[in-house]
Amino acid sequence: MIPPPRGFPTAEFAARLDRAQAMMATGGFDALLLSSEAEVRYFTGFLTQFWQSPTRPWFVIVPKAAAPIAVIPEIGAACMGRTWVDDIRTWSSPDLEDDGVSLLAETLLEVAGHGGRIGLPMGHETHLRMPLADYDRLRRILVNMTFSDATAIVRGLRMVKSEAEITKIRHACQVVSNAFDQAPSLFHLGQSETEVFRAFKIECLNQGVDDVSYLVGGAGPGGYGDIISPPGLRPLERGDLLILDTGCTFDGYFCDFDRNFGFGTASDAAKRAYEAVYQATEAGLQAARPGVTCADAFQAMQQVMNAAGALGNSVGRVGHGLGMQLTEWPSLSVQDKTVLEPGMVITLEPGMTFAEGKVMVHEENIVIRTDGAELLSRRAAPQLPVID
Amino acid sequence: MIPPPRGFPTAEFAARLDRAQAMMATGGFDALLLSSEAEVRYFTGFLTQFWQSPTRPWFVIVPKAAAPIAVIPEIGAACMGRTWVDDIRTWSSPDLEDDGVSLLAETLLEVAGHGGRIGLPMGHETHLRMPLADYDRLRRILVNMTFSDATAIVRGLRMVKSEAEITKIRHACQVVSNAFDQAPSLFHLGQSETEVFRAFKIECLNQGVDDVSYLVGGAGPGGYGDIISPPGLRPLERGDLLILDTGCTFDGYFCDFDRNFGFGTASDAAKRAYEAVYQATEAGLQAARPGVTCADAFQAMQQVMNAAGALGNSVGRVGHGLGMQLTEWPSLSVQDKTVLEPGMVITLEPGMTFAEGKVMVHEENIVIRTDGAELLSRRAAPQLPVID
Repeated sequence: MIPPPRGFPTAEFAARLDRAQAMMATGGFDALLLSSEAEVRYFTGFLTQFWQSPTRPWFVIVPKAAAPIAVIPEIGAACMGRTWVDDIRTWSSPDLEDDGVSLLAETLLEVAGHGGRIGLPMGHETHLRMPLADYDRLRRILVNMTFSDATAIVRGLRMVKSEAEITKIRHACQVVSNAFDQAPSLFHLGQSETEVFRAFKIECLNQGVDDVSYLVGGAGPGGYGDIISPPGLRPLERGDLLILDTGCTFDGYFCDFDRNFGFGTASDAAKRAYEAVYQATEAGLQAARPGVTCADAFQAMQQVMNAAGALGNSVGRVGHGLGMQLTEWPSLSVQDKTVLEPGMVITLEPGMTFAEGKVMVHEENIVIRTDGAELLSRRAAPQLPVID
Repeated sequence: MIPPPRGFPTAEFAARLDRAQAMMATGGFDALLLSSEAEVRYFTGFLTQFWQSPTRPWFVIVPKAAAPIAVIPEIGAACMGRTWVDDIRTWSSPDLEDDGVSLLAETLLEVAGHGGRIGLPMGHETHLRMPLADYDRLRRILVNMTFSDATAIVRGLRMVKSEAEITKIRHACQVVSNAFDQAPSLFHLGQSETEVFRAFKIECLNQGVDDVSYLVGGAGPGGYGDIISPPGLRPLERGDLLILDTGCTFDGYFCDFDRNFGFGTASDAAKRAYEAVYQATEAGLQAARPGVTCADAFQAMQQVMNAAGALGNSVGRVGHGLGMQLTEWPSLSVQDKTVLEPGMVITLEPGMTFAEGKVMVHEENIVIRTDGAELLSRRAAPQLPVID
């Protein structure tokens, strides 16, 4: 497959900034202080796996009426220098005595002024990626400033994707759909779960993903017990049910969907459970359109599984947002009243316990359009595929 | 290569707990509260890529005189149930109103008592992986408890590896050494950086790593400008210098080393820079022994590069700890006075700017033994390898 262009035009970042600053004006914020990988990348385009190292903190400040400022370790200056960000302030990190705190405080003071109001993501699905002791020190230095929750701004921005973002997610979904199509030649009886995972990772890379950042699942006789475990060493046996759930990336954007396979044969219970989650996904595809709440979409999907005799679900929801992270806001859950809008990319992920210790989970990726759901992943087979 | 056993015997976790509780007694802590992937895994063995999802918080409480308690989302109960942890308390997550905070508060109160002293990692290289607003709420519920920095405990424990941990890191290092040995057949002129990275990821998986969690680097005429960037689309040309720096995992433990390659030909400046960082690594191999401080090892390596005309180094250190994370404490830097001990696994990573915008970085992985450094990665060639 021919990949779409990498990166974004500067206009994309300028539009993100404009939307952010409009929301900041409404919320009365003088600046946003951002510290996590996705937040920093969203406003700058700074893409690196170096976040795997927990050693150094990284910051972006979004002023109320100027372009973003990067306050980062010197090791990142060259990489950040290739983004649209002009104002890059660095310190030699790691510094055991002052790892960027003084530089950050000074920059916040310059941008927001004495008594300024700083917005940080403090809510659900966020965390502060700097040492707690350094955050406390920052607060003491800037004792006259207010630090308030700005989750709604970051959440509101990132939930609705641009066409360029959707194109990247669709590409990841299509490449992984191609990889799943190879399942009958990749997987076989007698292969260990570890070898199944390895073969699938290599296939995804060969098909064109950048990274197989997430691959979980497992197999068991007549069903699997959970969907977040690493692979075991047990060989696949006749009657096993295998799930692979993967979040592969292209240019920093994730797909997140799964596929189920029987081996040799499948029990009627497993087949029925597969059909139940498949039909629940169909209900989700019908329900997911602009103006509908996440809670409504949840109900539409859950009632199909209830009618099929679902014994419960440990996942806590039947889908979620998707984009720069494997999971993002919103949640398709009974509590989440977020109204679906065109441009939102979500997963439909119905799951149910269908027998003691056995669950069945299915997942597809969609984007909400004005006239309803557009599939980004290639639709799974309506009946459980069985590999001989 | 035949991989070592996966997981750890329960005795390993019991020993970690004993050491933690001895330090807790000295520090006067009633319980530790841990929330990040590495901390949770260190005390429980809970291994999953599900941490890629930022949606749900996960907690482990280490009481001063009892086994660890997991306070986790229900979706993780089955996976945590296969660890040595018996006391697993779950809630249905995501819960937009109370995402585990009440359960966590209740458990902390039960374990540490009214007025108890809770230790959290708050220092360098740590962060709190839960929403800041939820942490504030927890503090308000437990207003009579003290929350203090326990970085020294987690740092002290994790810096010194067991033989079982060293075996996993050595395996990752050896597998990746095998992959680097294939470089002349994997990489060629005209190949884009993106294709170089893809070929190397597939080779690492074929050789036996679980995941290529980290692969950065790049190529440029006569040298590269930074070492944390993702690959570009530019084809390799005669005279290019390529660096690949990778952190691959086996059973949740990282290697972290790099290799440099010339293509077609290499400039004298590049060859000299390569020899300088190679010799700086030799100096590190001699210097890194029990009783020596990180600052001393830094000086031993840095003076070799200074003598070779180094123009600076944006990395801020010349090596670091390695294990469950790509980078861990300590740092081989002028500030870090940590005394090296047997069982510490570190990288030697000398880097220098050798011309305007051109850096040369080299890296090997070692474990400190009573009689000095033992290499875990297979030693690089003393002269810059050039691929035709």
